[in-house]
Amino acid sequence: MPGTVLEGGESVEIAIIGGGIVGVILAVGLLRRNVKVRVFEQAQGFREIGAGIAFTANAIRCMEQIDPAIVTALRTSGSVPTSDGNEDDPNDYLRWIDGYNQLREDDPYYQRMLYKIDAGYRGFEGCRRDQFLEALVKVVPPGVIECKKRLEKIEEQEQEKKISLKFVDGTMVEVDAVIGCDGIKSRVREIILGGGNPASYPHYTHKVAYRTLIPMDEAIKALDDYKAKNQHIHIGPNAHLIHYPVAGRKMINATAFVSDPNPWPNDKQMVAPGSREDIETAFAGWNPCVRNVVNLFPKKLDKWAVFDLWDYPAPYYNKGRICLAGDAAHASSPHHGAGACTGVEDALCLVTLLKQVNLSVQESGLSKRKALSLAFETFNAIRRTRSQWLVNSSRRVCDFYHQPEWANPAKWVKAETCFEELKDRSYKIWHFDYEGMIKETLKGYADREAGLLPASSRETSEH
Amino acid sequence: MPGTVLEGGESVEIAIIGGGIVGVILAVGLLRRNVKVRVFEQAQGFREIGAGIAFTANAIRCMEQIDPAIVTALRTSGSVPTSDGNEDDPNDYLRWIDGYNQLREDDPYYQRMLYKIDAGYRGFEGCRRDQFLEALVKVVPPGVIECKKRLEKIEEQEQEKKISLKFVDGTMVEVDAVIGCDGIKSRVREIILGGGNPASYPHYTHKVAYRTLIPMDEAIKALDDYKAKNQHIHIGPNAHLIHYPVAGRKMINATAFVSDPNPWPNDKQMVAPGSREDIETAFAGWNPCVRNVVNLFPKKLDKWAVFDLWDYPAPYYNKGRICLAGDAAHASSPHHGAGACTGVEDALCLVTLLKQVNLSVQESGLSKRKALSLAFETFNAIRRTRSQWLVNSSRRVCDFYHQPEWANPAKWVKAETCFEELKDRSYKIWHFDYEGMIKETLKGYADREAGLLPASSRETSEH
Repeated sequence: MPGTVLEGGESVEIAIIGGGIVGVILAVGLLRRNVKVRVFEQAQGFREIGAGIAFTANAIRCMEQIDPAIVTALRTSGSVPTSDGNEDDPNDYLRWIDGYNQLREDDPYYQRMLYKIDAGYRGFEGCRRDQFLEALVKVVPPGVIECKKRLEKIEEQEQEKKISLKFVDGTMVEVDAVIGCDGIKSRVREIILGGGNPASYPHYTHKVAYRTLIPMDEAIKALDDYKAKNQHIHIGPNAHLIHYPVAGRKMINATAFVSDPNPWPNDKQMVAPGSREDIETAFAGWNPCVRNVVNLFPKKLDKWAVFDLWDYPAPYYNKGRICLAGDAAHASSPHHGAGACTGVEDALCLVTLLKQVNLSVQESGLSKRKALSLAFETFNAIRRTRSQWLVNSSRRVCDFYHQPEWANPAKWVKAETCFEELKDRSYKIWHFDYEGMIKETLKGYADREAGLLPASSRETSEH
Repeated sequence: MPGTVLEGGESVEIAIIGGGIVGVILAVGLLRRNVKVRVFEQAQGFREIGAGIAFTANAIRCMEQIDPAIVTALRTSGSVPTSDGNEDDPNDYLRWIDGYNQLREDDPYYQRMLYKIDAGYRGFEGCRRDQFLEALVKVVPPGVIECKKRLEKIEEQEQEKKISLKFVDGTMVEVDAVIGCDGIKSRVREIILGGGNPASYPHYTHKVAYRTLIPMDEAIKALDDYKAKNQHIHIGPNAHLIHYPVAGRKMINATAFVSDPNPWPNDKQMVAPGSREDIETAFAGWNPCVRNVVNLFPKKLDKWAVFDLWDYPAPYYNKGRICLAGDAAHASSPHHGAGACTGVEDALCLVTLLKQVNLSVQESGLSKRKALSLAFETFNAIRRTRSQWLVNSSRRVCDFYHQPEWANPAKWVKAETCFEELKDRSYKIWHFDYEGMIKETLKGYADREAGLLPASSRETSEH
């Protein structure tokens, strides 16, 4: 799917705010379609951390559609299937395992498998976020991504002129449109929805996460060979532990999530100092394998408050020529492992639209402002329902993992009835019909261009 | 799909406990397949009441598979599509409408449509339960159904002999197998799972229901023509009102559901005297159309506590030659309107199996006891997951309808994100692949017969 070469044609100019995985993937896709783009990242370097991330096969197929170079970047950054590459059964699975009960004296490694869903061959690929981003950035020509650019304001002087971006360092840039890929604490979201609006800010999910990377040999000692080399979710009352292999299967990425009934003290600071003792307390009395893994966490480590946009979802993702994508639009808790995958779907929708915008401007003589507004209106219509569903669903599945019923044998039968729903929810994520989405996106834009659908009354205004 | 005529072959003898809709449908299907069956009903007459019931198109296709005479009975008992038969749009829909907010002074009938799902042409058909049952019973030859037979005990003297049913009136009957279609308060469930086991009894869902039938002309005055002639669910904080046309569109069946945080005083008695005032209080401040309908309820009426099997689901539906089906197995709250539909799916699975049982006994020489145990084991494996999902899902959708967020404008955007999930849940019910179920059922039974699947260790014992 090579980009159309716009010989002599002038492309719209897009600013992407935020140089994370979704922002850079979007930039790669736009460049491939000859859409002019600049990426502005507030940090000194790139925003991703050394934690693990996994992509579904479906998200990787979306990447392929955006630009095959993205898949190459993923694979060269040490991504591996989350299964152990067993020849008899090479597929990836989600495995939910009893973390709390069913101790067996004759086999200290025994944990009952509660449920398992087949995600197919290479159903998931895990890697380290920072390594993937580093590989992705190499695909982008120099000069496209600028760091240390923290957005302050978006100003639109006159409707048919460019939009001005003002950065905190005093510099200014003019573009035709802005896409906020600036993550959960998005400044672009705050600008679109308004300061003080609760939908402008993420809220606490009442779960805290502790992450670490564990060398494979130690993980095998703690869990046994099979569990260490394969993705597992150990569930039980008020907490769960998830792990899967990363870094060419030399390590496992392990994350412990713990329910927290209390408010989080500081909305601006989602990371606080934590200790292994916190997790030891949460997993006291759990299966020895789980406690073995907990013992491999560092004594002092960060405690991540999980925030999302569940309490007050954004009522719209677009306003005139400004749009939100990825976590900026729909930051979810990580319990489906599908937040970034959904951002990749967003990017596929946006590159499809912005290629059409250039065609409209060059061939139909539509104004850039009008074409971009219609494109973002279409994006909102196509993407909002599914992505908000994901935010809800991610909360729901964690509620299932943390059911207090797991600690009550009389409630076990009921607790296990959750798995049919977990399966349906996983399938909805995995089996996403992205080709259908592309068709709907093109039709939605064409219908709006033809005036068949009412245009939004939301337009950019000064903030 | 005519039944196989078993010339000279001896059929197994089945007792169905409970002469409700599911029990009689099952009996009709067994008779059509030349399976000997008797139905024992505890009441003087038939157990269904004059309230409305709707079947999905899918459930009606299942009835067609069981015996086309069932569909004829449905249609002759005054069933109508829940839509208004509009030629421009003849399909049936589920419609969720704002019952609480969005008052408009210039149009007292205005209520915002929140969401609508297309169920297709004749997607639902509504009728009165008592009229349908009456028509169904006419399909059954005289002598098959016996009333005033309340089951007391099930006894199995020796493994290869018949099972004895003892009734409260002192009579006894011997059969090869027992299927409990005896509804939410099932005695057969109590016998299988044990007296005192919380899974043997239904529990309170903390919702109460008030039902009435309203003549169509009065409904039109209350709601307007369109709403009265079409199914609508009016939702709002802690309550909802659902109605649809019944009885050849001469009346609407209206049910008000109200959340109740208190315990229900008496587990044995799910109906208590209520009054229109109770509902007036619950719907105070709601849209005038909703209050108009509430005013048409009788001043004194029954209050139905909604019970279900959510808290303690049955861990299995079968034990030896005894099996549970319909509400006896998985009584759910009525909020998907799919409880009876799921019972019809159960009946289709059971008639498929019992036809095979007769073939096994006559052709393969399998013992009746063994064949019946394998059949019920298969039934449990095929039906339990889906039907328990329905129990959970029915609770979940009512939670969505009653979200307190509907009363808080700042939470409206969030409240409306529920509809994607409502759609998925409805599709899972409507688009059930019953042909796939029949194939899986036949394969499951054949595999068990061939010893490919482990047989259950649960056998009938004396109670």
